[in-house]
Amino acid sequence: MIDPQARWAQYGEKPDFAGLLSFSGVPYTEDPAELAGVDVAIVGAPTDDLVSDRPGTRFAPRAIRAASCPPGPHLEAKIDAFAELRVVDFGDAPVLPADPARTHEAIRATVRQVLDAGAMPVILGGDHSIAEPDIRACAEAHGGPVGLIHFDTHTDTGTEVFGVEVSHGTPMYRLVRDGFVDPTRYVQIGLRGYWPGEQEFGWQEEHGITALFMHDVRDRGIRAVVDEAVGVVGSGPVFLSVDIDVLDPAFAPGTGTPEPGGMTSADLLWACRAIGERVELIGMDLVEVIPTMVASADITALVADRIVRETLTGLAVRRR
Amino acid sequence: MIDPQARWAQYGEKPDFAGLLSFSGVPYTEDPAELAGVDVAIVGAPTDDLVSDRPGTRFAPRAIRAASCPPGPHLEAKIDAFAELRVVDFGDAPVLPADPARTHEAIRATVRQVLDAGAMPVILGGDHSIAEPDIRACAEAHGGPVGLIHFDTHTDTGTEVFGVEVSHGTPMYRLVRDGFVDPTRYVQIGLRGYWPGEQEFGWQEEHGITALFMHDVRDRGIRAVVDEAVGVVGSGPVFLSVDIDVLDPAFAPGTGTPEPGGMTSADLLWACRAIGERVELIGMDLVEVIPTMVASADITALVADRIVRETLTGLAVRRR
Amino acid sequence: MIDPQARWAQYGEKPDFAGLLSFSGVPYTEDPAELAGVDVAIVGAPTDDLVSDRPGTRFAPRAIRAASCPPGPHLEAKIDAFAELRVVDFGDAPVLPADPARTHEAIRATVRQVLDAGAMPVILGGDHSIAEPDIRACAEAHGGPVGLIHFDTHTDTGTEVFGVEVSHGTPMYRLVRDGFVDPTRYVQIGLRGYWPGEQEFGWQEEHGITALFMHDVRDRGIRAVVDEAVGVVGSGPVFLSVDIDVLDPAFAPGTGTPEPGGMTSADLLWACRAIGERVELIGMDLVEVIPTMVASADITALVADRIVRETLTGLAVRRR
Amino acid sequence: MIDPQARWAQYGEKPDFAGLLSFSGVPYTEDPAELAGVDVAIVGAPTDDLVSDRPGTRFAPRAIRAASCPPGPHLEAKIDAFAELRVVDFGDAPVLPADPARTHEAIRATVRQVLDAGAMPVILGGDHSIAEPDIRACAEAHGGPVGLIHFDTHTDTGTEVFGVEVSHGTPMYRLVRDGFVDPTRYVQIGLRGYWPGEQEFGWQEEHGITALFMHDVRDRGIRAVVDEAVGVVGSGPVFLSVDIDVLDPAFAPGTGTPEPGGMTSADLLWACRAIGERVELIGMDLVEVIPTMVASADITALVADRIVRETLTGLAVRRR
Amino acid sequence: MIDPQARWAQYGEKPDFAGLLSFSGVPYTEDPAELAGVDVAIVGAPTDDLVSDRPGTRFAPRAIRAASCPPGPHLEAKIDAFAELRVVDFGDAPVLPADPARTHEAIRATVRQVLDAGAMPVILGGDHSIAEPDIRACAEAHGGPVGLIHFDTHTDTGTEVFGVEVSHGTPMYRLVRDGFVDPTRYVQIGLRGYWPGEQEFGWQEEHGITALFMHDVRDRGIRAVVDEAVGVVGSGPVFLSVDIDVLDPAFAPGTGTPEPGGMTSADLLWACRAIGERVELIGMDLVEVIPTMVASADITALVADRIVRETLTGLAVRRR
Amino acid sequence: MIDPQARWAQYGEKPDFAGLLSFSGVPYTEDPAELAGVDVAIVGAPTDDLVSDRPGTRFAPRAIRAASCPPGPHLEAKIDAFAELRVVDFGDAPVLPADPARTHEAIRATVRQVLDAGAMPVILGGDHSIAEPDIRACAEAHGGPVGLIHFDTHTDTGTEVFGVEVSHGTPMYRLVRDGFVDPTRYVQIGLRGYWPGEQEFGWQEEHGITALFMHDVRDRGIRAVVDEAVGVVGSGPVFLSVDIDVLDPAFAPGTGTPEPGGMTSADLLWACRAIGERVELIGMDLVEVIPTMVASADITALVADRIVRETLTGLAVRRR
Repeated sequence: MIDPQARWAQYGEKPDFAGLLSFSGVPYTEDPAELAGVDVAIVGAPTDDLVSDRPGTRFAPRAIRAASCPPGPHLEAKIDAFAELRVVDFGDAPVLPADPARTHEAIRATVRQVLDAGAMPVILGGDHSIAEPDIRACAEAHGGPVGLIHFDTHTDTGTEVFGVEVSHGTPMYRLVRDGFVDPTRYVQIGLRGYWPGEQEFGWQEEHGITALFMHDVRDRGIRAVVDEAVGVVGSGPVFLSVDIDVLDPAFAPGTGTPEPGGMTSADLLWACRAIGERVELIGMDLVEVIPTMVASADITALVADRIVRETLTGLAVRRR
Repeated sequence: MIDPQARWAQYGEKPDFAGLLSFSGVPYTEDPAELAGVDVAIVGAPTDDLVSDRPGTRFAPRAIRAASCPPGPHLEAKIDAFAELRVVDFGDAPVLPADPARTHEAIRATVRQVLDAGAMPVILGGDHSIAEPDIRACAEAHGGPVGLIHFDTHTDTGTEVFGVEVSHGTPMYRLVRDGFVDPTRYVQIGLRGYWPGEQEFGWQEEHGITALFMHDVRDRGIRAVVDEAVGVVGSGPVFLSVDIDVLDPAFAPGTGTPEPGGMTSADLLWACRAIGERVELIGMDLVEVIPTMVASADITALVADRIVRETLTGLAVRRR
Repeated sequence: MIDPQARWAQYGEKPDFAGLLSFSGVPYTEDPAELAGVDVAIVGAPTDDLVSDRPGTRFAPRAIRAASCPPGPHLEAKIDAFAELRVVDFGDAPVLPADPARTHEAIRATVRQVLDAGAMPVILGGDHSIAEPDIRACAEAHGGPVGLIHFDTHTDTGTEVFGVEVSHGTPMYRLVRDGFVDPTRYVQIGLRGYWPGEQEFGWQEEHGITALFMHDVRDRGIRAVVDEAVGVVGSGPVFLSVDIDVLDPAFAPGTGTPEPGGMTSADLLWACRAIGERVELIGMDLVEVIPTMVASADITALVADRIVRETLTGLAVRRR
Repeated sequence: MIDPQARWAQYGEKPDFAGLLSFSGVPYTEDPAELAGVDVAIVGAPTDDLVSDRPGTRFAPRAIRAASCPPGPHLEAKIDAFAELRVVDFGDAPVLPADPARTHEAIRATVRQVLDAGAMPVILGGDHSIAEPDIRACAEAHGGPVGLIHFDTHTDTGTEVFGVEVSHGTPMYRLVRDGFVDPTRYVQIGLRGYWPGEQEFGWQEEHGITALFMHDVRDRGIRAVVDEAVGVVGSGPVFLSVDIDVLDPAFAPGTGTPEPGGMTSADLLWACRAIGERVELIGMDLVEVIPTMVASADITALVADRIVRETLTGLAVRRR
Repeated sequence: MIDPQARWAQYGEKPDFAGLLSFSGVPYTEDPAELAGVDVAIVGAPTDDLVSDRPGTRFAPRAIRAASCPPGPHLEAKIDAFAELRVVDFGDAPVLPADPARTHEAIRATVRQVLDAGAMPVILGGDHSIAEPDIRACAEAHGGPVGLIHFDTHTDTGTEVFGVEVSHGTPMYRLVRDGFVDPTRYVQIGLRGYWPGEQEFGWQEEHGITALFMHDVRDRGIRAVVDEAVGVVGSGPVFLSVDIDVLDPAFAPGTGTPEPGGMTSADLLWACRAIGERVELIGMDLVEVIPTMVASADITALVADRIVRETLTGLAVRRR
Repeated sequence: MIDPQARWAQYGEKPDFAGLLSFSGVPYTEDPAELAGVDVAIVGAPTDDLVSDRPGTRFAPRAIRAASCPPGPHLEAKIDAFAELRVVDFGDAPVLPADPARTHEAIRATVRQVLDAGAMPVILGGDHSIAEPDIRACAEAHGGPVGLIHFDTHTDTGTEVFGVEVSHGTPMYRLVRDGFVDPTRYVQIGLRGYWPGEQEFGWQEEHGITALFMHDVRDRGIRAVVDEAVGVVGSGPVFLSVDIDVLDPAFAPGTGTPEPGGMTSADLLWACRAIGERVELIGMDLVEVIPTMVASADITALVADRIVRETLTGLAVRRR
């Protein structure tokens, strides 16, 4: 394990733009044995072979790490997640370009290493197809279907997209079908736009999935929406899956299937923190980030980083 | 068939930025029956599912059409290609994202439609994996292996790339192996960088493939290199495959595996014209172009689209 | 008429990035005879010769088409506009660069073709000067002045801008003056910033034009504002003119005279849908979009195009 | 003094993109003697030598001038600031790259020239370290500590940043410590994120500094927050310091340490107007703007410049 | 006249990114009386109303000034042009957007002011249509037709472009036709691509215009080409007109009608210096530069501007 | 030490965009004890506090690592540098923003750690001021002044820049003055533009420094220039310092003080390889890279990477 701060020890602090690239500058390891005692492990899943529109999420894990900021107290929550939790960066899963089957298996296996060490995985995608190995690993480790809070423009419950069954538009259908997600403990937040259609929503209703639309967020407010989501998942293990396109493109322009009329960063950040605080999170992924630039800040990668941070902060409050 | 110029007939000429998007503003059709009497048909192959590094060539056919300029006399050659040849834009092959096998079959079938109509296909990729369906269609239509002039940084004669056999790094190996390209009439121009290795070059030598490196171009000059290439392919049908990364990144920054130290535009343009003039071309593809301006969505155009869509939705509600 | 979906029929669905470029992938025609039975026709008006600040809206119609998404049910309204309405893309009006008078006449005539076929025109600008031919065609077709709902930062009711009478800052003055818009049925929404001044607002008041400012939107809410607008235009034909700069630059950075402090996408999208639902729309335009990614040429696509062109030129020499 | 409008006098008005580059096109002078009778003087402070993350604010003063729009009546306030106030652009302070001490002294002296002429300085930074010379000049000119309204993500009250005492993270600590700001009349608005920590907030509380967080803005509304701020500073001279990163990155992506979850433009613009109206402003600065489009050189403009330069060089040779 | 260096006098030198924006930091004036004794005056002509493809040259004069570097000795020629010649920046001609006729007259009159003061004008365009007022002013001032060395991809000798007679594609035809350029002393360098055609080249031959193509530059070398050009213009007054698109797009991507296969910067820079040295230059223009980074507004700088503006507005309310 | 390839061992090869970010994917360590037996250690020096124009080189080391490609045989030299040499990535020196003195000391100490372990340091800047600690460490380790081959537009032998003595424009003056570089074994290649002046060149001549200009490269060819350089440094230890701005901006747009008319990538790459092969290199730095983008390739970082690669390849040839 390498601690990027160590080299700066005699000088002061490591600036964000220098040193080993790890999430928030936390220690970095690729050795599962070093995960003992770790609370949270960051895992990159740089892949986008299964997208139907714009590719580029393969560049996201590095961009999110570069946009991450050092530990420090949350000014509203008055707690420093990194002081409460032992967080390490476990590097990227060994993905293989143009080979989504082996890539998914590599992701599943890497997430499972984290879980087997007793740590919570936070997976930085990658396109949303990775939710399948991410959540499957969690369900397998926890011995049964998990609850799911899912922020997204789209339900991702198609049976196929362009005739492809394993796709970034189908993971949630497959996870419910295969018994890895409990549909009665599954809530979607932020839906809008023009997909999917009656068939998919019909299937969702049959299985008792809760769909909260963007107009629900606007009309009822984020607090009421989060209250309902927390009620739906109840007690028991919950996975949090955040598709960055739940945000309005003004707040997250770098994504593959953006849809105007979405959430604000303030709402999503608050919601993630509240969820981390109020439910039993056993894993998280953050997907569909396409970095747009490096000259100035990449604001999409930045808000992605803060989504994780808010969740960890909430988790830290709960643990205390 | 729609002739984009027709609407401007009473006014004058169509500007490049307006009207139906077709290559050089030539007539557009998707009906094979309308290819009768056509000399050259442009075919888009917007796909990039088989790349090993940066994706984005799926956006190239539209970008190349948008960058094309109207017919006119070549100032050096003193001839207008569009006055001598009947060129139409045959649209894009019906590719399917995340399904490279069906995509390749769709490309092969579309190129074959062009060939069966007696026209020469010019395929705008797409990543270099499409050379396999492109050239296979030509060889099948012409009843035997074809000659090949191949501009590229890389030989693309790997047996696999990251364990993947159908890849943008393997088409030429497969085409020779499967008898669609005659290795003794196959010449590569512009090789440089750090791939492939001894094994692949050994295989090339065994089969009599001619490899001309970038240092050959610099030391001997483009004219001598083209002379040699024309001699290698001799008489008989020849396919021309141009990977845009043969150019130096200064001249073509938008590509997936750029390599400094490449050709100038002036040399490559001259060489292509000379080859068109001196060998019996039966098809061409141009691959690995990644437009530099479509990495993420244009969020202004996106919200503009949705404004129209919302209005139409309201209208639909009203009409119902 | 070409249906871009047709080629994909045997394979599934057309991806957004492939195939003939039309709005939402609807059928494309430039033949007025084919408009029979059509409900809505999209018309591009790629022009910007009359702007006073940043040019670039000539690139908007293609960019909006590229950003459009395929038909599907609206997740809030529970209706698919494209299933209820027959929509076609009628291509671009035959504009002429640097000749705004002939361009305006071409736009007016093209919009009139749509109206004469009984369809509703949706014009994708172009700068806001095109509102003059757009609305004039509608008023002429409908036999008298129309109502107008106008989203904008600016009133566009100047008598001249930089001494120029036909400008993107004057169309509404001219349309009222010439009897094409009924000022008592004309409402502006979203005004802010520093233009125009007392003279123009005095003229507006004299004629009974209703001006709703951005502070009205913020203080009263978008629903109350739309209620008032719907009341002002009442029954009878109404044109909807949306200048994208009514949005805050965070939501629409690509425009010529952006002004901070504007509307959110969510508000504008809801308002457009409500207006479509509640008033008798007879036409719409959407203007002042400047795509952010086409400022200069994409030099990679450009050289790619010329490679093909050189080859064809060589081929032409050979054929001759 | 040069009035950029003068040359256009016989033609009409100067377009924003042409003529001498000054703020809002107001008269430009570098001569302190010409400040007599002036109400407000704009001063550029193009420096960024003391930042801890992304540099680039040295390009901000020119970019803000280029983005400024001409005088005109405020559509909500119904008043034209430039008709009521005599505003001039006093150019840039004579900063020196890589020499922050001399740069700060140059800024202080230039601001003092404005104050000595009886005008109010509006300083366009530059990084936030310039608040130290800006406010020190004001306090010295006004003979005692001033009140301070400070919009920012961060408190900027560190004692050091990366071991550096004069930094963009420390000016407010130093100004209070040195008696230039009255801590009981100092209010911070918009704080969020993960810096600083307990030590700095403890120090703030000891000194009676008022900290209003972003969650205060969201929960209580901007009007209540501004009411409190106005109450805190009370009567007496007040400096307004705006760090652009108080805005959400959606509204201001170009800044060095962006933090999601910030203010909207509408709120900040309203607040600044209200503060200008309700307190006794004696100076203002606006800092941490990094123009998003000047990261690297514009190579086309660069070679254009050198073409002229070469010609002049040849001419010089000829003349000699 | 303001000397941007003056304010730095006591500190040292002005950095390029600070201070009054003038070409190379030379003194700036808009007063013709101050041109007495001046050798060279820089004149901006920020206009693009007459282009047929991409607009944006209206932003070029400011961008070229920003890219210019301070005086200093030419490392090859061993001479400092600014030490030998008295150069001033005469600001921009009072152009008017969307009014090309008045804009051309303003340019002509401003160039004439320079000539009447005995100085040589160097005009920074703008599109190439400005060559007409530029050269006409020179010919009128010098009492007869002038010689012309013209670097360009295109001949710009059309009689019309898209039916428009005063265009960026026609100035050279009009200047010869109207007797302002002597066709026997007119040489074009760098022609390539696909425009114009036989008619225009026929007209050129009839009038004795010398056309040197890009293949001449490549085959014969830049020195021989410049030798021939110098021979053609001989003795007597010569105007130098440089269209930046004569460069390959790799060297100058920001231009409206780029064409691959062009000149290198090294060749063009050397040629311009040689021409300045060897012929009797009486004026120069440099046109068709489109800065690549100003496509849309810089929204951060924009909101920064409005923050100041709102504050001033509040202050104005208070003052009233 | 972490070997980024290890995790992929059972799957195949690591793609460039995934896994621990190290130069070319070589093993990464920050522990000096692990440098035993290492031939070459990469050291990042992410700093730009001492620049006089555009900042941004602090982002270069990460960008160069991201642009680097995996080991493989050089297609011209027929050798794989990484098979011949043991290369590790030693991470970044512990720089401190806004504190150039401590940053320089940290760089010097880190480079010295490499040298003391018997490895050759390759430092990725950073601005050119770092040449001072880089070369000083080498001279100290080698016990006397070293030879220097220096590619650059500028001589960097000023005594001060804007009054600052430790600057990116002065390192070479200081290194010669302080006895760390032997001026008779110091050669500059690629000089052009307008800086410095007579005084600096006079000082250079007095000390016997060899200055080869860009016109020497063009007139004599890169081979002759390299021959001369190799002759000047002769036998004995040599440091190679490459300022990326020696390249023409077409080939390296991302740099702080670009100057048109520079070298091509092909020439510089060949020269670096030849130098690595022919002289006794004891260290190298590569400076002034400002990354411009991440969406497509960053071509400047890419060519920077290849410059190092070529040098290592040459070194490998020599070692064999």
